[in-house]
Amino acid sequence: MGRGFFITFEGLDGSGKTTQLKLLAAALTAEGRTVVSLRQPGGTALGDRIRGVLLDSRSEAALGTIAPLAELALMFADRAQAIAEVIRPALGAGAVVLCDRYTDSSEAYQGAGRELGSERVLALHETVCEGLWPELTVLLLPSLEASLRRARRRNTRHVKEHGTDENRFEREGDAFYGRIHEAYERIAEREPGRVVAVRDDAPVEAIAGKVWEIVAGRLR
Amino acid sequence: MGRGFFITFEGLDGSGKTTQLKLLAAALTAEGRTVVSLRQPGGTALGDRIRGVLLDSRSEAALGTIAPLAELALMFADRAQAIAEVIRPALGAGAVVLCDRYTDSSEAYQGAGRELGSERVLALHETVCEGLWPELTVLLLPSLEASLRRARRRNTRHVKEHGTDENRFEREGDAFYGRIHEAYERIAEREPGRVVAVRDDAPVEAIAGKVWEIVAGRLR
Repeated sequence: MGRGFFITFEGLDGSGKTTQLKLLAAALTAEGRTVVSLRQPGGTALGDRIRGVLLDSRSEAALGTIAPLAELALMFADRAQAIAEVIRPALGAGAVVLCDRYTDSSEAYQGAGRELGSERVLALHETVCEGLWPELTVLLLPSLEASLRRARRRNTRHVKEHGTDENRFEREGDAFYGRIHEAYERIAEREPGRVVAVRDDAPVEAIAGKVWEIVAGRLR
Repeated sequence: MGRGFFITFEGLDGSGKTTQLKLLAAALTAEGRTVVSLRQPGGTALGDRIRGVLLDSRSEAALGTIAPLAELALMFADRAQAIAEVIRPALGAGAVVLCDRYTDSSEAYQGAGRELGSERVLALHETVCEGLWPELTVLLLPSLEASLRRARRRNTRHVKEHGTDENRFEREGDAFYGRIHEAYERIAEREPGRVVAVRDDAPVEAIAGKVWEIVAGRLR
């Protein structure tokens, strides 16, 4: 039982990261690897409860406005539980762990989007996550325009089907999205060894091929 | 509308702090002061949801074991919301804010009780609470033996009445309580300007008289 490999997927809502994570999980499983996939927030019983609290707060009817620092701390509570309950045990057992969003999301959405600042987010990561970083982060970063188009389309469909606006982020203005996009660019520049950005606005299969090349190169 | 005054109450479960907080609130109100009381965790809609998650996790049936760092981050999420929604606005309006538990509880229970360390708790406080400390902390610190006796009696009564064991802390061993008691002693020594310890195991009314003297001296 060797040590596993920890990969996170990052990007704006609508960047296609969840689809790419699933395709990668299937490809790795087909190669005989043990794969553990999870999303954040969520991925544990506690995390699902926290996710529920966050989504309710986004409707703003049930809970009123959530303070940005409270939201940030909830994200990290979820992450600490996922690390203790899922990520560390899976890595210890030699699995490939695929996580849909991780601390880069907190830095981009809360740090830049809500303007809490990167330093604060990274300080929380050190304290609450004990500095656990993935070996590889696949950052899906098509043009901001393409991401916004996809996110809006998805949100309209969701509202039609469920009658609710599940994702508060998708109601934020373009300036909010612009700050997140820039933050992801900065993270990629700052950590070229960990973060690989895929910038194409190509079809799903073409992106999947690129992701596979990146991951296969690292796992070998 | 002058700036208000922020007082926290601290102590082990069974130390009588909730009773003393209520008596002080009544006495201050009778003097014509505007008083805002809250407890932690809880005190806001979000906080009550977080409190529910913590209590459910303590039954361990619904949520499994909560990771100590996740518990700590949840406590601070609750606190950040209470600060933004209740404490800062009330202080800004000139009220006396009485808070049943605050960061000293996290340092004593999670830092010492769960052995996460004081540094980690204080780092989280700086990041998530932006360093907001009360002007005065009333620490009710009767002997460890007296506190344990009262906590056990209360817990037995609760289990009888509700058929559940609401307070996981009260199922912890005496060593856990001993670490918390010591941590409170250390905090009182470290911050003599802020923390006033009441060590008597006297009747409720006698303690209330002492608390009133301390608070009146500071408010004048």
